[in-house]
Amino acid sequence: MNNTAKKYPHVMTTPSEREIRVERIFNAKRERVWQAMTKPELVAKWWGRGNKVVVERMELERGGHWRFVEHSEQGTHGFEGRYSEVVPQERVVQTFEWDGMPGHVVLETMTLEDLGDGRTKLVNVSLFMTAADRDGMVSAGMEDGMADSYAALDQLLAA
Amino acid sequence: MNNTAKKYPHVMTTPSEREIRVERIFNAKRERVWQAMTKPELVAKWWGRGNKVVVERMELERGGHWRFVEHSEQGTHGFEGRYSEVVPQERVVQTFEWDGMPGHVVLETMTLEDLGDGRTKLVNVSLFMTAADRDGMVSAGMEDGMADSYAALDQLLAA
Repeated sequence: MNNTAKKYPHVMTTPSEREIRVERIFNAKRERVWQAMTKPELVAKWWGRGNKVVVERMELERGGHWRFVEHSEQGTHGFEGRYSEVVPQERVVQTFEWDGMPGHVVLETMTLEDLGDGRTKLVNVSLFMTAADRDGMVSAGMEDGMADSYAALDQLLAA
Repeated sequence: MNNTAKKYPHVMTTPSEREIRVERIFNAKRERVWQAMTKPELVAKWWGRGNKVVVERMELERGGHWRFVEHSEQGTHGFEGRYSEVVPQERVVQTFEWDGMPGHVVLETMTLEDLGDGRTKLVNVSLFMTAADRDGMVSAGMEDGMADSYAALDQLLAA
């Protein structure tokens, strides 16, 4: 681990009863952040916050599928979805579904903004099918998990 | 084709800006309707309204995936999703996604009610991620396509 990784706080808001919006700055150029988020071997290094992640599918194009399986002491958890829109370096729209709650699909819109000073701002808007789905995700500890993943991404970007 | 198939009109309503609700009566016992909707070789006979349908996956259980491919003169269209809930003879909750609009997922809740007189009432509630998704589906001729599929199902049930 590289202890010099600069870590910015995330800002989480709820623009509507079915949405969660997260902003997070990373201390790296946009191209580097994009690579870390889209190359399977790099995704595997931070997505699971230290847990082993097997990237089973990652067909990064409109209509392509993705599936990641996380292996931890708490068990094995599969996550999957499909890409709706992919604009290199700028934007990915995809669905997200945890095997443990099949059918409870989340539509995620991720954008990367080049801040022009070597830093990159990520904005991720998650649209849930229902308000109950969103509240369930929040109750399940989504914010802490996300913070841990982004901290792991900071480390990867600083390496 | 069996011309004696009894065909009931469907009733389509919009309970909210993101929903479409359809009621349709079938002139067959619930067990027969359930079989026609869940046995791949029977689904292939009515789902495509006369077009060839290849049932690539139909893992009818919570968490299982389905994928149907329809072949018509207008081309090849894939549809897929995942089962969220399966209660034999009574209820199926599943997602629905057309390859042509990846990420625009619909959550469908289908229930079958035994009317006690040899007929069965189907109620299908489709919940779209956005009102625009729902309006797009309506504009694309969803109601006519559905009516044709249910008419084909009438024929199958009468055979």
